[in-house]
Amino acid sequence: MPVAVKGLEGIVAADTRMSFIDGEKGVLEYVGIEIDALARHSTFEETTFLLWNLRLPKRAELDAFSTDLRSRYELPPGMEQRITSLPTSAQPMHMLRTMISSLALHDSDPNRNDPASARVKALNILAQAPAIVAAFDRHRRGLPVVRPNKALSFAANFLYMLNGKEPTPTMARAFDACMILHADHGLNNSTFTARVIASTLSDVYSAITGAVGSLRGPLHGGANEDVMKMLNEIPTVSASEAFIKHKLDTKAKIAGFGHRVYKAYDPRATYLKTLAKQLSEDTGNRDLYEKSQAIEGVMLREKAAKGIYPNVDFYSATTYHCIGLQLDLFTPMFALSRIAGWAGHVIEQLSDNRLFRPDVDYVGPHGVAYVPLAER
Amino acid sequence: MPVAVKGLEGIVAADTRMSFIDGEKGVLEYVGIEIDALARHSTFEETTFLLWNLRLPKRAELDAFSTDLRSRYELPPGMEQRITSLPTSAQPMHMLRTMISSLALHDSDPNRNDPASARVKALNILAQAPAIVAAFDRHRRGLPVVRPNKALSFAANFLYMLNGKEPTPTMARAFDACMILHADHGLNNSTFTARVIASTLSDVYSAITGAVGSLRGPLHGGANEDVMKMLNEIPTVSASEAFIKHKLDTKAKIAGFGHRVYKAYDPRATYLKTLAKQLSEDTGNRDLYEKSQAIEGVMLREKAAKGIYPNVDFYSATTYHCIGLQLDLFTPMFALSRIAGWAGHVIEQLSDNRLFRPDVDYVGPHGVAYVPLAER
Repeated sequence: MPVAVKGLEGIVAADTRMSFIDGEKGVLEYVGIEIDALARHSTFEETTFLLWNLRLPKRAELDAFSTDLRSRYELPPGMEQRITSLPTSAQPMHMLRTMISSLALHDSDPNRNDPASARVKALNILAQAPAIVAAFDRHRRGLPVVRPNKALSFAANFLYMLNGKEPTPTMARAFDACMILHADHGLNNSTFTARVIASTLSDVYSAITGAVGSLRGPLHGGANEDVMKMLNEIPTVSASEAFIKHKLDTKAKIAGFGHRVYKAYDPRATYLKTLAKQLSEDTGNRDLYEKSQAIEGVMLREKAAKGIYPNVDFYSATTYHCIGLQLDLFTPMFALSRIAGWAGHVIEQLSDNRLFRPDVDYVGPHGVAYVPLAER
Repeated sequence: MPVAVKGLEGIVAADTRMSFIDGEKGVLEYVGIEIDALARHSTFEETTFLLWNLRLPKRAELDAFSTDLRSRYELPPGMEQRITSLPTSAQPMHMLRTMISSLALHDSDPNRNDPASARVKALNILAQAPAIVAAFDRHRRGLPVVRPNKALSFAANFLYMLNGKEPTPTMARAFDACMILHADHGLNNSTFTARVIASTLSDVYSAITGAVGSLRGPLHGGANEDVMKMLNEIPTVSASEAFIKHKLDTKAKIAGFGHRVYKAYDPRATYLKTLAKQLSEDTGNRDLYEKSQAIEGVMLREKAAKGIYPNVDFYSATTYHCIGLQLDLFTPMFALSRIAGWAGHVIEQLSDNRLFRPDVDYVGPHGVAYVPLAER
């Protein structure tokens, strides 16, 4: 009798050349390069080039890639009006899923998925997703939409459109690092979703739209709001230790700690911690960082032996808050960044495609008669 | 060394109690009941109840279910305006994916996925998807949108909204049968997509939106336009045999014949053939049916021994054409029907959930240094 492999745990569903994770040792590499080095020295544009081309660009290539991306920042005609006619109560992840999907309606040939076309469509989606999020957030705050600025990087342009002013260099750098750190992470559920959809030879819009829907789930990206909620629950820095100890005593889960894959310090959290510290000082949010520090102190004493360490969400929370993001934009930020990874996996899937069509175990009855309604 | 199971072929990824396929014998059952009996005697509403509740309804239950469905036919406020502001050149599948996604923006609590809430959301999507397709099709044809009619069944209401007049009983019956026949089919790619997305505890909108994107692909639902294209290529009934023989001689694929799963007569095609015949006579399209008959005759003589028979797409083409559907609405029709199956699988997945998170085989380099841009 066939038995279902629940969650496909332990089944190798694809090859990849993009990211490598060793959870025991706390290693994450993109195309062989340690994530910490990329976070410190690369840019999101360069990292996206790396993931899509499997090597770092030369200067002329990076310039061309960045220029191409920036040339696509503007939303298609009518799109801004469509976003500002949405209910202001709409949840940003549902909005983002819908609006990324709708980009296909402005593409005269949305179905092409030859390698060159797939890259162009991916670049369009990546370039326009920030404008979608920023336009909607300003619409719901009753503020005029700010058009993109092609003189700015991906990270700086997003913050400019969101806040109506150019970010400080520290803000732009911290946000850029967050984008790098979240860009790819093996065959997580949303990435798998993108590959499954792409395998029907459907289009890049369909694959990325599906992935946004997956990321929304609380067992996936949706959990990244929880750290901020926790920090908000703690009244003062000095109350942090008691708050966490009480949580531990009552066996409650501590948001931002532990990861299904990492049993060591999440390699994405190290540099983020430094950035969060500086940013919290710059923006008058020092208490957020200090609460986080206090929580980490307790947790390392109590839980490090069990392989429970801060994960990437833990210091992202302070960073995102200091940058001016409302809580329900945290998961959309994850999506903006992960578009790079999703698109890279779609390109990878198409390069050696086989339709995903697993078996199913039918466990219901057979040979049941159709009894007419009158006789039931 | 781990090796990827391409396409997850042969891996059992889930249990189901909904549909059972025996491709060798040409059997398809929904909850144990032969598809042919359902197509002849059931309705799409009853079949949906069957798939979602794993038993046929009693009369009062069916009445309540149908009334509930009809009460949800109307689109949310602003939605019609949103549809009629879309570019008329938009492709219907991209439009449908986008507009199903946007239904979540009108739901005050879109993320709830407890069993009762998931069913309500699924019912909403099922009830409103026909209005979305019909409104867009009339918009692009320059015709006024026709509001739904709650006095009509799912099938009849769709044709009423599409054509601006009530369908004949034969039309309504044929379309209803098409909906029954396409409602569920094991763990096909779009159904798998819906389950993968739902497994993050994301919402019904996200799961169904992702599934629509998957269905679009030419290796999945997107192929159902090809039969009609072929029928249009054949100038006259008497030219059919030579046309097909030439195709066979040149080893060309014949649209509507053969199926990855069925090596016998597709059990969904039998009754559809009868309906297509009657409908083609009623609507002055007898030549379409006769061309199809002639093609089937050649193919059965030449290919039946190799297990190549007409599939469900073959007589769907004539049926859809006679009903008044433009070619690019054929795949959206598949989607309307399959919403029943996708939603049923989401409900099934949530009842015994495990996050889909397969492994990946990293086949790239390790320990690559980050070389600064200036030194590349």
